[in-house]
Amino acid sequence: MAAPMQKDTADPGSTVLTPSTTPERRLARWVLRQLGDPPVRFVLWDGAVATPDVPGPHLDVVFHRRRAFWRLLANPLLHFGEDYVGGDITVVGDLASLVESIYRRLEARRIQHGRPAWQRLLLRVRPAPANDHRRARHNVHHHYDLGNDFYRLWLDEEMVYTCAYYPEPGMDLEAAQRAKMDHVARKLRLEPGERVVEAGCGWGGLSRHLARHYGVHVTAYNISKEQLAYCRERARAEGLEDRIDYVEADWRDIQGRYDAFVSIGMLEHVGRENYAELGRVMHRVLDDDGRGLIHSIGQDRGEPLGPWIQKYIFPGAYPPTLAEMMDLFRDSGFSVEDVENLRLHYARTLEHWIERFEAHADQVREMFDERFVRTWRFYLNGSLANFRAGSLQLYQVVFHRRGHMELPWSRAHLYE
Amino acid sequence: MAAPMQKDTADPGSTVLTPSTTPERRLARWVLRQLGDPPVRFVLWDGAVATPDVPGPHLDVVFHRRRAFWRLLANPLLHFGEDYVGGDITVVGDLASLVESIYRRLEARRIQHGRPAWQRLLLRVRPAPANDHRRARHNVHHHYDLGNDFYRLWLDEEMVYTCAYYPEPGMDLEAAQRAKMDHVARKLRLEPGERVVEAGCGWGGLSRHLARHYGVHVTAYNISKEQLAYCRERARAEGLEDRIDYVEADWRDIQGRYDAFVSIGMLEHVGRENYAELGRVMHRVLDDDGRGLIHSIGQDRGEPLGPWIQKYIFPGAYPPTLAEMMDLFRDSGFSVEDVENLRLHYARTLEHWIERFEAHADQVREMFDERFVRTWRFYLNGSLANFRAGSLQLYQVVFHRRGHMELPWSRAHLYE
Repeated sequence: MAAPMQKDTADPGSTVLTPSTTPERRLARWVLRQLGDPPVRFVLWDGAVATPDVPGPHLDVVFHRRRAFWRLLANPLLHFGEDYVGGDITVVGDLASLVESIYRRLEARRIQHGRPAWQRLLLRVRPAPANDHRRARHNVHHHYDLGNDFYRLWLDEEMVYTCAYYPEPGMDLEAAQRAKMDHVARKLRLEPGERVVEAGCGWGGLSRHLARHYGVHVTAYNISKEQLAYCRERARAEGLEDRIDYVEADWRDIQGRYDAFVSIGMLEHVGRENYAELGRVMHRVLDDDGRGLIHSIGQDRGEPLGPWIQKYIFPGAYPPTLAEMMDLFRDSGFSVEDVENLRLHYARTLEHWIERFEAHADQVREMFDERFVRTWRFYLNGSLANFRAGSLQLYQVVFHRRGHMELPWSRAHLYE
Repeated sequence: MAAPMQKDTADPGSTVLTPSTTPERRLARWVLRQLGDPPVRFVLWDGAVATPDVPGPHLDVVFHRRRAFWRLLANPLLHFGEDYVGGDITVVGDLASLVESIYRRLEARRIQHGRPAWQRLLLRVRPAPANDHRRARHNVHHHYDLGNDFYRLWLDEEMVYTCAYYPEPGMDLEAAQRAKMDHVARKLRLEPGERVVEAGCGWGGLSRHLARHYGVHVTAYNISKEQLAYCRERARAEGLEDRIDYVEADWRDIQGRYDAFVSIGMLEHVGRENYAELGRVMHRVLDDDGRGLIHSIGQDRGEPLGPWIQKYIFPGAYPPTLAEMMDLFRDSGFSVEDVENLRLHYARTLEHWIERFEAHADQVREMFDERFVRTWRFYLNGSLANFRAGSLQLYQVVFHRRGHMELPWSRAHLYE
């Protein structure tokens, strides 16, 4: 059986290609059945092809070495990513669609039959060590201090590295990030002169937007030195320095009193064992009529991130369930006012990021190397697949002091 | 010390009024301090008055018999209601404000210090027996089969006995119940010709509204015979019988396939141990692109209802936390799309109900008796206090099949 042996740019190195055996080819088909017969073919190192039991167009997963096939069987959740990055596995067709189609089938099976034993076993990774001050710094440095120049290549002009908001689906990334920041500001009902504290401010996009357009004073906390340097320089350049204070400190060390608390894309790094403590911090720093918004990647089930992404992308990260997020509010005296799930907005954001990332892949390769390009390609496409398939969600949760009476009578003001 | 000895209409019966002792008067002041010094005076049976340590206008709680005072100390959560209903305790001033002021103070203390031991002890009531088919029928009969004539006195014209929605706070009850039903229909994105299943349809207000204004077919389940008889008669009278099927059956026995699942004010009676099962029912009866809405009283903390309301009003009822509600969705393959907290809308609804109830109190007394009037007065005002103080919340949760892609890009369509 002839098979397309196109490879993308990675070179897995030369190996002796011994032919695949009949048991191996049967095993490959068995794996496809276990995955729920997605529209995917497995192309083995000698060109042999395993086809799923359903007709139709297929994506090809090409195993360039026998080793990659057997490693996939041993630990698919870790080794598929590793061998994709190393180039021993390549994908012909859209990587995100491949992963999405598999996720959807596995999810449908789980609803009918529960999670199979092999998946439960693989997911029983040791919980990541608690994200105390020191480890939080390490983890944040790992991902966010890769260099502002790298992120500048493919983020929007305000350098917002969180889910955008597309009230009109045709919006470009710049407009959608601005729309997200306006959406957040409206949800917080900000008034000129109010004091906002931001926990985890990234490159400062939200703090600049709120200071510039809503007349508030923002105190923004971050533990990434590179990001803070960027924030301060840009606030100075844009004449916003008297309206924003940037503080290099962990969320545990937030000081002062504020009208509004906002945190966009930090909760994923807080560690679920620390939610109640974060709630106590919000209670301590918010005024009596204080309110807040937490924007976080989430999930429905409460399982650890896959081992590949934990190892290579986000050490110590965890996307909470909505139920787990309630630890933030329960004993700290807050009530949830509004939850909006922006899952498809994150999928759209990732589509935009991937488009820009690929347009600059050569520059990224020059700045780092081919493994780095493939690592990020796998991470961004895998994330897109997760949001499309519903394995990940994006929650914006608005909260207020329990028993607060001065609430709007409808959410119409968000849409005027 | 002179004290106002006004009594409302209840007659506690004649008793020998021995004077209060100094320890009793001190104890009364101590109780007020334990309650956080609310703007409340205790007027003892001999006219002695215990005043809190804060100045300002006060509400009076009048103990007409020594027994009521000591019973209050023994079990305030049960006996305050019982002796209010029996007339041994009366309140001079607004009952809801009295209860609200106490709830607010206790809640503020809990956030600072945790719940005091005496409250933990009192709340450690045995969990209500599981709400199986039989018990569910019994509990529903207890409250909802008091007679349609009674509810007709003070509900709106569509007989909706759940939280209304006041996008304009000045709306009357009729308009607000219609606005609630429209809000629900919009959240469900109903299209003409679609099939809706309603679990727990009350007196059928929503089923009539959806069939009449949204062109859908509704299959509505209920286990209250009196309500169903009313529903069927009214659907016939209004020419809606071919667009609504009323089924006398428990939610566990819902049959068929539907585009949308809706349940307004039933979850409180389902029992938290049954949420996953209700989720499986929703999974079984919803189409692949099915979606749904659950509207339920909720709470932040996850504690049983007070013993008085469990004993006299809602046996077996439990208002879930948002976290507990997630059991509905997690393993049944749904994702939460939108949560709106309508707590202040329930407070406003209760204000309207109380106004109408009091306007018809004489008729209610004729239909039942004075104890019944006082029972309902205590229940309605206590509920109002709970919603104002934030001890109760009202959640509308919209959900869809996990991974569904055809979602609106914003919630603006709810407000057009």
